[in-house]
Amino acid sequence: MPLNSHDTAFLQDILPFWNKLTPPQRQLIQSGSAPHNFRAKDIIHSGPGDCAGLYCIKSGQVRSFILSDTGREITLFRLFERDVCIFSASCVLKNIRFDIYSQAVEDSETILIPTAIYRDLNQNSLAVSDFTNQLISSRLSDVMWLLEQILFMSFDRRLAIYLLEQSSIDGSDRLKTTHEEIARNMGSAREVVTRMLRYFQSEGMVKLSRGEVELTDRKKLEKMAKAK
Amino acid sequence: MPLNSHDTAFLQDILPFWNKLTPPQRQLIQSGSAPHNFRAKDIIHSGPGDCAGLYCIKSGQVRSFILSDTGREITLFRLFERDVCIFSASCVLKNIRFDIYSQAVEDSETILIPTAIYRDLNQNSLAVSDFTNQLISSRLSDVMWLLEQILFMSFDRRLAIYLLEQSSIDGSDRLKTTHEEIARNMGSAREVVTRMLRYFQSEGMVKLSRGEVELTDRKKLEKMAKAK
Repeated sequence: MPLNSHDTAFLQDILPFWNKLTPPQRQLIQSGSAPHNFRAKDIIHSGPGDCAGLYCIKSGQVRSFILSDTGREITLFRLFERDVCIFSASCVLKNIRFDIYSQAVEDSETILIPTAIYRDLNQNSLAVSDFTNQLISSRLSDVMWLLEQILFMSFDRRLAIYLLEQSSIDGSDRLKTTHEEIARNMGSAREVVTRMLRYFQSEGMVKLSRGEVELTDRKKLEKMAKAK
Repeated sequence: MPLNSHDTAFLQDILPFWNKLTPPQRQLIQSGSAPHNFRAKDIIHSGPGDCAGLYCIKSGQVRSFILSDTGREITLFRLFERDVCIFSASCVLKNIRFDIYSQAVEDSETILIPTAIYRDLNQNSLAVSDFTNQLISSRLSDVMWLLEQILFMSFDRRLAIYLLEQSSIDGSDRLKTTHEEIARNMGSAREVVTRMLRYFQSEGMVKLSRGEVELTDRKKLEKMAKAK
């Protein structure tokens, strides 16, 4: 079943190469792509063997992460509405030598452009190849940012930044989260997070309760986030 | 002065898109590119404002790194003969949001394809755009590897791997290096490196002397490098 006009309009809107495609290329996307909906916590793709294609996110939130031998997860970046997940089509790319996983954080609606179609477009359209380029560069920038956080930044500053970002993503000062989850997302240990959160609480910056971190002094957190 | 026939043959050999270029595009590269030689320790490019073009490495070794606010350097990857440095042309790429530096480790001979020429080719040749994609994917894989090392691997294992790699790069079991340099390349502190090297020495795996680390038990180092 081809995409409906609403979904087609959505792709046209978010894919910068759409207007540079030939009519048969557009037709290929329309007839070959399909809506895929995920529930919160569903795994969208697992590692390099899993190469379904490009997921274009209509709504929701997707988290991409790497996995250690011992099962530790490190979040690399998050994708939101209008973002495109390229690593679920990483078999299209040459020289990708790492395993990446993606999971729906919230219920998420996507449109999947299958690998065979994207590969064909990527090989035949300069505009598509340039878009691939932009996606990879953008994800590389995300990973570089994370690397710099880990290498160069003190943990109190990183945690303050993390809490402020989560608050802005959630649109609330009350974060429904556990210390375990914060540690996982920051590539740290639960104990380290708990210790620092208690310090923040003693400074009046947050209030801790079961399954919740409430930001009680944004100014102070923002000051810490900017500190060198 | 256009490139001589030897340098042109070198580019033809290492650039997979060469045979897909039009004669005028090849002519553009030949007439616009030029040899650039660097002495060991010369800085090749500094951050994003420095966008001379693509350096194609004929001989030598180049190290690319990031720099913290406090001047700490972390080596991201190394480029050798026949490699191409893309981040010295990062203004051609969209979505690159980090600053990267490159330095010649040894005396290095390169050919520079200037930014204006590479941008033009990248915008007009699918083969060039695909090559750009491969380069970025490859560097992203390097950075992911480093991130995984830092996040997931114990320091003894990382150091064993580092020493074995350096030995294979140098083609010698006697590494002319300081603890400071090892720390810089591994994103660690000198004290941590010194402590672990002394432990390796006490285990008979290395022998330390001024400005030198000698690998005295490769088998044991290799076993450690493989340990989980």
